[in-house]
Amino acid sequence: MNHKGILTVLSGPSGSGKDSILSRLAQKDPQIVVSVSMTTRKPREWEIDGKSYYFVTEDYFKKKIETGQMLEYAVYGGNYYGTPKAPVDQWLSSGKTVVLKIEVQGAQKIREMYPDSVSVFLMPPSMAILEQRLKSRETEDPDEVARRLSIAAFEIEQCSLYDYFVINDELDEAVDNIYSIIKAEKLRTSRMKEIICEVIKDA
Amino acid sequence: MNHKGILTVLSGPSGSGKDSILSRLAQKDPQIVVSVSMTTRKPREWEIDGKSYYFVTEDYFKKKIETGQMLEYAVYGGNYYGTPKAPVDQWLSSGKTVVLKIEVQGAQKIREMYPDSVSVFLMPPSMAILEQRLKSRETEDPDEVARRLSIAAFEIEQCSLYDYFVINDELDEAVDNIYSIIKAEKLRTSRMKEIICEVIKDA
Repeated sequence: MNHKGILTVLSGPSGSGKDSILSRLAQKDPQIVVSVSMTTRKPREWEIDGKSYYFVTEDYFKKKIETGQMLEYAVYGGNYYGTPKAPVDQWLSSGKTVVLKIEVQGAQKIREMYPDSVSVFLMPPSMAILEQRLKSRETEDPDEVARRLSIAAFEIEQCSLYDYFVINDELDEAVDNIYSIIKAEKLRTSRMKEIICEVIKDA
Repeated sequence: MNHKGILTVLSGPSGSGKDSILSRLAQKDPQIVVSVSMTTRKPREWEIDGKSYYFVTEDYFKKKIETGQMLEYAVYGGNYYGTPKAPVDQWLSSGKTVVLKIEVQGAQKIREMYPDSVSVFLMPPSMAILEQRLKSRETEDPDEVARRLSIAAFEIEQCSLYDYFVINDELDEAVDNIYSIIKAEKLRTSRMKEIICEVIKDA
């Protein structure tokens, strides 16, 4: 029973814990793949090329856009961020659940292009905790923290556009909640048409 | 953070395993309560009054309807089936997830009255297995099996009206799937408005 996979968008302010959640999700279920985004921003100390992001030059990124190889892209804090198209389409047609970690602008584009995609907004339990998490990243200077907080406020304003809202207080619980969302979405009648036909064919 | 509970409808043909699933769900999570329906049909040997159903007379049932004490009711195979209203409203306002085991006619009424309710259609893995399950209930005579199969065919035709479609092949998996649906539905942005306001209030 081969059915098309689900495209899932995960957004949330820097410091909400998207990366930790995504690596746990992919470990939990081999049917879930996390799409690696491409960016022109500088890697942070702990980030690995090809895992955190594909870190590329602005020229390279622009060429990808021009040749129609990006699913979506956005400029954010002066840097390009985007999703390479080919692997996503391949995974979806092989029935995988593909999770995209993207900013709110990109999420909106995905919703328009893939109306049956699922979107999840991830939040820390409070703004105070978000600020604290951003400050505890030793590599970030105060200006950078302030800048990220103002971007966060802009993103948070748009959370009502998302299908689901998950609070990342306890990591295990947040992972479990997002996993439940994916499992439930697979069971939607609208996605089960082929399977339903198979099951009820002698009714 | 007290928020209103979710009304969940579970339908599925006789023999799909609704009762086993419901008792497991209620054991799994004290926030889930299963509403006991009222019926005028005769109890089967293994059924317990007040647990499987409230078994009542037709006169009693009709009085309940006349005095507005039924949330929904339907006549099915010559018998009345319905949901007493008061306990459901009480549970919902205390934030519980209330599961109603009801037939397709009743489910349709609930969808109209509670547009934010969630509906799940439960099916055995195939019609052949459904027939086999019905036949293995020793108390059922062949005419009764044939009658239930024809009712099942009618119900199954309407499964696309439900939000979710769950196949009961392995009981544990089916319980887990329905539990995921309930968890995911609680995380819908549209149901999380109060919590979202609380979390983002200083953004």
